[in-house]
Amino acid sequence: MMSRGVKAPELMIASWLNTPEPLVLENLLGQVVVLHAFQMLCPGCVSHGLPQAAAINELYRSDEVQVIGLHTVFEHHNVMTPDALKAFVHEYGLTFPIAVDQPSETGPIPVMMQKLNLQGTPSLVLIDKAGVIRLNHFGRVSDMQVGNMIGQLLMEGDESLDLVKASGAKNKTPYVGQRGAGGCRI
Amino acid sequence: MMSRGVKAPELMIASWLNTPEPLVLENLLGQVVVLHAFQMLCPGCVSHGLPQAAAINELYRSDEVQVIGLHTVFEHHNVMTPDALKAFVHEYGLTFPIAVDQPSETGPIPVMMQKLNLQGTPSLVLIDKAGVIRLNHFGRVSDMQVGNMIGQLLMEGDESLDLVKASGAKNKTPYVGQRGAGGCRI
Amino acid sequence: MMSRGVKAPELMIASWLNTPEPLVLENLLGQVVVLHAFQMLCPGCVSHGLPQAAAINELYRSDEVQVIGLHTVFEHHNVMTPDALKAFVHEYGLTFPIAVDQPSETGPIPVMMQKLNLQGTPSLVLIDKAGVIRLNHFGRVSDMQVGNMIGQLLMEGDESLDLVKASGAKNKTPYVGQRGAGGCRI
Amino acid sequence: MMSRGVKAPELMIASWLNTPEPLVLENLLGQVVVLHAFQMLCPGCVSHGLPQAAAINELYRSDEVQVIGLHTVFEHHNVMTPDALKAFVHEYGLTFPIAVDQPSETGPIPVMMQKLNLQGTPSLVLIDKAGVIRLNHFGRVSDMQVGNMIGQLLMEGDESLDLVKASGAKNKTPYVGQRGAGGCRI
Repeated sequence: MMSRGVKAPELMIASWLNTPEPLVLENLLGQVVVLHAFQMLCPGCVSHGLPQAAAINELYRSDEVQVIGLHTVFEHHNVMTPDALKAFVHEYGLTFPIAVDQPSETGPIPVMMQKLNLQGTPSLVLIDKAGVIRLNHFGRVSDMQVGNMIGQLLMEGDESLDLVKASGAKNKTPYVGQRGAGGCRI
Repeated sequence: MMSRGVKAPELMIASWLNTPEPLVLENLLGQVVVLHAFQMLCPGCVSHGLPQAAAINELYRSDEVQVIGLHTVFEHHNVMTPDALKAFVHEYGLTFPIAVDQPSETGPIPVMMQKLNLQGTPSLVLIDKAGVIRLNHFGRVSDMQVGNMIGQLLMEGDESLDLVKASGAKNKTPYVGQRGAGGCRI
Repeated sequence: MMSRGVKAPELMIASWLNTPEPLVLENLLGQVVVLHAFQMLCPGCVSHGLPQAAAINELYRSDEVQVIGLHTVFEHHNVMTPDALKAFVHEYGLTFPIAVDQPSETGPIPVMMQKLNLQGTPSLVLIDKAGVIRLNHFGRVSDMQVGNMIGQLLMEGDESLDLVKASGAKNKTPYVGQRGAGGCRI
Repeated sequence: MMSRGVKAPELMIASWLNTPEPLVLENLLGQVVVLHAFQMLCPGCVSHGLPQAAAINELYRSDEVQVIGLHTVFEHHNVMTPDALKAFVHEYGLTFPIAVDQPSETGPIPVMMQKLNLQGTPSLVLIDKAGVIRLNHFGRVSDMQVGNMIGQLLMEGDESLDLVKASGAKNKTPYVGQRGAGGCRI
């Protein structure tokens, strides 16, 4: 049934950060995969895309939703090197696995970026439990929309009606507690 | 089956704004209902809760997700009157249906606020397609978490695997287009 | 020399909040006066104007810069009453003196609003040490611009070259310390 | 008299961006100089410091207030190179003059960073019309405080009482006009 969308191509990666060994999509079947394509010198990635990826990584258990950063350099290749990325990831405190896209032998656009047919950065690619691409979006997506789509993908093929459990959330209460000022308690 | 949670009590409302006729939960079975309890002079409602309710109302089709504001006055009764609420709703440009909770005859806490056992404002109550309360939360919830939970509730009992259609989103592309600066196009 | 601008008209006020006795402009000569005109149901006042007035009140010593809120109701008179304002000021935690503009006997625009020729709310009126109006602005002004103008008004007629002392700032270090993440220390 | 503070040391710079020829502090006497020290991979510089420097550059005329970015690399030297900085400045659309601090021959801290005794990035250094350092601050400073201090420095030695002219603002109205929603016009 899952016929809409196309099967996500397997990852072809030059090197990894934040993971003891390379991630393989084939091994992630059964989980929702969030691929966040970015460049370290792309303002929209730094201000919006990467914080959103970090928030997804924070909200869900990694055995339910696997966040993967994908560094897809298509400009300024000489300065957005793996070493520069490593310093960037350290300074920004990113903790989810980050893959360095494989440079192309024939042009500026790296391999995965071509295979995924990305239009630029930031791009958000959502892959369902069956390994099928369900969203491939260049630019900004609101947090509410991302939550909505991941929530739906988590429910596919899931019999569970336990909202908290099914949510993949890290603990029993999948919401932020009352924080800061402003709430008016009885 | 769907045994967790309790059936939401039917609405007992003094008056309505933004709807030609009163809403009845019994008639909303099959839809997800988002009840946002607020007070017009509650800072957390004005800065966070009501904008979030408006964003939910904007994201989903009303025949999939019905947003209802619930004005639950439990303090400053003499100034948070229905007339004051009407001016407030006009100035803040709120367009979703808003119900004025029925004053109690015996104390400051109005009727629905008691029936729902709310602890204060803002409170977010999520009711599933079967009319069962699945979340009852006082304070702030992140947009991503709200999207995640509504997305999951929408999928319950839904055979569809069409993410866009199932999302209840108003149009085919359930995401915000590239806006503002910062995206780096190839 | 101070000939530009016009002398600010003396305040004609119906009632006061947050002050043991009425403030009189004549008694404030030698200080910079920041008049913030607002309505409690005006979204721009709640989201921007009043937080800015509170920040000014926080930054400067009150014997150098006197912040005064002016509740200038020109619409929804029946619900933006002094009692409603009192609840609003309490809930939002405003601590600077707030004056209720005197209702007009002939129309909806209250007395001070007419005398100051305000166009709406929020409006920011800056009065210099000589009692002359130097800015009368309807709408949003950036924090940097407000700081710039108050800083200049404070320097007028001041021989001091001590930036910190002259600033009217409450303590020796007129800046926020390093807060939150992001600073990179050697 | 201006005896407080010390004379700012003359700039010793490896290379410049965004200026046809090197800037010399001696030539800027009579103007207020805003030195913003940053590193391109410092999160606090990217999110707060550089936007504030750009806002100062936007607000004031450059013959009254000269903003200078100072790239003071003290870590990750191999990746925060002049070429990388050039790509960064291009992507972030920075338009004010930016100086690359001269590397030290003996350690990781570059020359100007040592001479100015900076503690890290971002750092804000305010130099008055007489070339004296009046503020040297590591970390975040609010926009209102920065505006206040620059406004005061602009007034020193200025006979003018014309707030708009003296402000160094680019046009007659040194404030943002009414923008966006929320203002309530009569």
